Amino acid sequence: MPVGTAGAVKAVHRHEVADDIKAQIILGNTYHLYLRPGMDILQKAGGLHGFNGWQKPQLTDSGGYQVYSLAASRKISESGVSFQSHIDGARHFFTPERAIDIQRIIGADIIMAFDECTPYPCDYAYAEKSMHLTHRWLKRCCERFDSTEPKYGFNQTLFPIVQGSVYPDLRKQSAEFIAAQEREGNAIGGLSVGEPHEDMYAMSDLVCQILPKEKPRYLMGVGTPVNILENIALGIDMFDCVMPTRNARNGMLFTSEGIINIRNAKWLDDFSPIDPNGTSYVDQSYSKAYLRHLFIAGEMLGSQIASIHNLAFYLWLVGEARKHIIAGDFENWKNQMVKKLDQRL
Amino acid sequence: MPVGTAGAVKAVHRHEVADDIKAQIILGNTYHLYLRPGMDILQKAGGLHGFNGWQKPQLTDSGGYQVYSLAASRKISESGVSFQSHIDGARHFFTPERAIDIQRIIGADIIMAFDECTPYPCDYAYAEKSMHLTHRWLKRCCERFDSTEPKYGFNQTLFPIVQGSVYPDLRKQSAEFIAAQEREGNAIGGLSVGEPHEDMYAMSDLVCQILPKEKPRYLMGVGTPVNILENIALGIDMFDCVMPTRNARNGMLFTSEGIINIRNAKWLDDFSPIDPNGTSYVDQSYSKAYLRHLFIAGEMLGSQIASIHNLAFYLWLVGEARKHIIAGDFENWKNQMVKKLDQRL
Repeated sequence: MPVGTAGAVKAVHRHEVADDIKAQIILGNTYHLYLRPGMDILQKAGGLHGFNGWQKPQLTDSGGYQVYSLAASRKISESGVSFQSHIDGARHFFTPERAIDIQRIIGADIIMAFDECTPYPCDYAYAEKSMHLTHRWLKRCCERFDSTEPKYGFNQTLFPIVQGSVYPDLRKQSAEFIAAQEREGNAIGGLSVGEPHEDMYAMSDLVCQILPKEKPRYLMGVGTPVNILENIALGIDMFDCVMPTRNARNGMLFTSEGIINIRNAKWLDDFSPIDPNGTSYVDQSYSKAYLRHLFIAGEMLGSQIASIHNLAFYLWLVGEARKHIIAGDFENWKNQMVKKLDQRL
Repeated sequence: MPVGTAGAVKAVHRHEVADDIKAQIILGNTYHLYLRPGMDILQKAGGLHGFNGWQKPQLTDSGGYQVYSLAASRKISESGVSFQSHIDGARHFFTPERAIDIQRIIGADIIMAFDECTPYPCDYAYAEKSMHLTHRWLKRCCERFDSTEPKYGFNQTLFPIVQGSVYPDLRKQSAEFIAAQEREGNAIGGLSVGEPHEDMYAMSDLVCQILPKEKPRYLMGVGTPVNILENIALGIDMFDCVMPTRNARNGMLFTSEGIINIRNAKWLDDFSPIDPNGTSYVDQSYSKAYLRHLFIAGEMLGSQIASIHNLAFYLWLVGEARKHIIAGDFENWKNQMVKKLDQRL
């Protein structure tokens, strides 16, 4: 899922997200949308679909992650989280119920439960305590969700989130609790927050053995192309990450042959297409030398081109993964790909 | 002509300039292109057309304007101008011959003569002296141009530039000198540099009575939609201006009903299309409230949308002007339009 933090995938037109990148679903951030444009505007617009005009599915995180990573002077209690806006310092209070109400108003197709995302490193005692809080909050989220109706005439669904930091017994306990809620899909949070990749894979592996196969399993905030393929191998079905767009804005291109830092002098007079194997029109339309020039000259068109390229590459990569799973040769293909994807070109 | 300073119209993809904005020609800045990507890269790319992939005509200014407005510690002498790059402080020297050579390498379809653009206000003595220098430089430009060949297999042409500040006798003298060179088109420089609009129109009027009608008359660096219509009324055929793109990036939209500052709170919950009369897809695709949100949230997509809108509006406006000239009712139409174009909505 391309990330559309504030209701827009950064630097990419809506029709480009649909037609050039071929995204089937995008993600919005509850924390950002709640603060700006705010609930009143979103409600008047008929929800986020009405506001940004994106008619395919949208998923919203619960705001938990941003409250912990962006907001100032947050205070966590049993009832919820009090925090200050990073924009104007105004104080707000999110509860599990409020997070559901907000996502009802946003009109997200997939609503995420309100959880606490533990940092890394995180001691065992805190991780355990936090996981139980997340579980209690989940019960409140489910109650609120199940006792309220969607506002705009289409169904919404609620995904609960497995926590437990990098502790196998906590992850196991959390995954069992989450699976027992029997929602339509399940998510894994609290990974890709600085832990070694091996720990991420170990937790993903363990949790995927517990969460039901027949429902989507969503690994939140992951990751590099290699991270994505390795987690697909472990059973993950859905991902979101700012990496393809954020790194694009810094001039980093992900390709099937490896990683390009387009600002590098080696591309100065390389007039070959950005990515001869690329599937989006920008790959053949613009040369490496021209794209490098746009970045060096500070032209925002550089970010626009790189964002389309990276997102189209990510969507191509997961599409290929699906094909190879169906064809039965995923493992071989994945092992070949991961050798190339991390190379610096 | 949309301005593509560094070989790219800011925030707009090449195919959008062609298909959505319907530009027939774009402008590049010799000073910027000379410094970055530089002559070596442009030559290797087969000129600017090869570098940025824009296959319709391109016009380059001579670098004179940027040398006077951007570069540091410039020194003007009979032979040319010595200046320091605004990027790295490196010292460079432009002569009329060098300006032609550079534009031969850039491969511009229309090359501008190297002139001195006088500031406003400018005393008579300086304006007169500067005009004569511009005329002597023009002779050198023409000699260099006529004794060299295009590099990439297509024709290039050279436009001379009328100077003379806001002094009618100097403008008359300069226009006669420029017309006598009998080039394929002629330009008017040194206006839209801070003088009252009445002075601009008076000079444009005077010069258009001297420059031949059957050749394009190009007023450099102009202007607002009203400026453009008023100058068309006086006989101008070509314009370039950063205003539609620069103001777009600041949230100012030009429309057929007047000017919108999209950051204004009045658009907060206005879910109507950006411009119901607009001819580009963005006008119907995005609402005012959403575009305002993008600007307030600092999303570069806001600049992208506003840039497409403004450029498409400018191209629509001059296209309508042409239709009304042909239909014989230009004056009436123009007088109706200028009443609306400057209004703040």
